[in-house]
Amino acid sequence: MGNVKTIEIHEDIFADNDRTAEEIRRKLRTQGTFFLNVMSAPGSGKTTLLTVLINRMKDSLHIGEMDVDIETAMDAQRVADRTGTVSLQIHNGGLCHIDADMVSRALQEYDTAGFDLLFLENIGNLVCPAEFDTGAHKNIMLFSVPEGDDKPLKYPLMFQVCDLVLITKTDTLEYFDFDMALARERIRQLNPGAVILPVSARTGEGMDAVIRWILDCRSQILADNTF
Amino acid sequence: MGNVKTIEIHEDIFADNDRTAEEIRRKLRTQGTFFLNVMSAPGSGKTTLLTVLINRMKDSLHIGEMDVDIETAMDAQRVADRTGTVSLQIHNGGLCHIDADMVSRALQEYDTAGFDLLFLENIGNLVCPAEFDTGAHKNIMLFSVPEGDDKPLKYPLMFQVCDLVLITKTDTLEYFDFDMALARERIRQLNPGAVILPVSARTGEGMDAVIRWILDCRSQILADNTF
Repeated sequence: MGNVKTIEIHEDIFADNDRTAEEIRRKLRTQGTFFLNVMSAPGSGKTTLLTVLINRMKDSLHIGEMDVDIETAMDAQRVADRTGTVSLQIHNGGLCHIDADMVSRALQEYDTAGFDLLFLENIGNLVCPAEFDTGAHKNIMLFSVPEGDDKPLKYPLMFQVCDLVLITKTDTLEYFDFDMALARERIRQLNPGAVILPVSARTGEGMDAVIRWILDCRSQILADNTF
Repeated sequence: MGNVKTIEIHEDIFADNDRTAEEIRRKLRTQGTFFLNVMSAPGSGKTTLLTVLINRMKDSLHIGEMDVDIETAMDAQRVADRTGTVSLQIHNGGLCHIDADMVSRALQEYDTAGFDLLFLENIGNLVCPAEFDTGAHKNIMLFSVPEGDDKPLKYPLMFQVCDLVLITKTDTLEYFDFDMALARERIRQLNPGAVILPVSARTGEGMDAVIRWILDCRSQILADNTF
C-alpha cells in the first residue's frame, strides 16, 4: 500500500495570502501610503464615488487608484479622465476576486512611492472578494438603495469584513422600498464595529463624512508602529 | 526519483459538470419539466420577478422553485408565501455559484415529478454562476436599470451564456442615466441570439412577453427528441 499525503490546499492558499497581505500593508504604511479596498455588487457606484472622493481630496493628497475588471479598462479610464489621476487597470483573467499576490504583482508595475492614499476598486461581487485579504489597511463596501435592505442577510461575510459600509444612491430612496433603519440594524448585527454612512454621489450627501473617516483612519494607520 | 502524475483538475471538473448537467436536462425533459436557471447581480429583482411570473402562470402550469443562497431561507420563503408554491431553499456552503452536481443532489430531495416548469433562482453574482452549467434547459439573466448600461462590457460571459436577458426596473429609467439602445447594442455584440426584453415587475411592463417566451421555449424543448 502506497503512501498518501494529504494537503489542505485551501488553508495553505489563505495562509500564504495573509502573509503577502501583511507585507503589502507594512510596505505601504512605511512609505506613508494609506491603502483602501473598495468592494460592492456590480453597479453600486464604486467608480462614481471614487471619482467624487478623489476630486474632493486631490489638492491636499497625492492619490492613486487601481481598478480590477475581467475585461475593459473603462473604470480606470473613467477615473483617470474625470480626476487627472494616473490609474492602473488590472485584468484578473476572468477570476471573481483579487488576492494579495495579484495586488503585490500590480504594485511592482505601479509606482506608488509618492501616494498618500491608494484606492483599489475591486471587482463587482458580494461573495468572493470578501474571502481574500488584499493587503488594504481598511475595507469599504458600497451597498446601494436599489439592491434592497435584505442584502446584509444574504451576503453576511462581505458585511463582516468591512470597516465602513456606505449605503449609496440615497437620492433614490423615494423610488424604492428600502428601510434605512432596518438596513442599519442588519449591518450592526453582523458587524457592530462597522461605521455606516448613507451617501449620494448625485446630491453630495454624506461625502464630507466619508472624507473625514478616510483622513482619520489614515492618521491612525500611519501613526501605528505595531506592524 | 518518484513518479509524478499531473491532473488537470479544472478541465475534469467542468467535463464532469457538463455530463451531470446533460443528465439533468434529459431526465427533466423526459418527465415533462422545463427547467430555467435565473441569474443576476444581487438586488436585480429575481425573487420579485419569479413571484409575479409564478402567480401569472400557476393556474395553467404546475410550477416548482429552487432558491440558492449562502444563508437564510428568505427568498424561497418569500416566493412560497406570495405564490403558494412549495419552494426548496438550497444552502451552498458559502460558495459563489451552484453547479450541476449540487442541482442533482437538490433534485433528490425535491419531488419535481409533476412540475411543468421549474425555476432555479441562482445566487446573486455576475461572475461565477456563468461558468457552471446547472442542467437548465435555458438561462435567463436579469440586469437592472440602476446597475448601469455598461454591465455587458464588464461581465461578458454572463451575457454570453444567457438565452433571455431581462432589463429590469424600467419604471426607474427616468431616475438613472441608462441608455436603453446602447445597452441592447452591447448585449447584441456579445450574444446576437439572445432575446432582450425590458420589464418592470412594478408596472407589469414586458411580463406578457416573458411568459410567451417561456411557453414557446417549453414547447420547443419538450418536442425535441434529440437529447
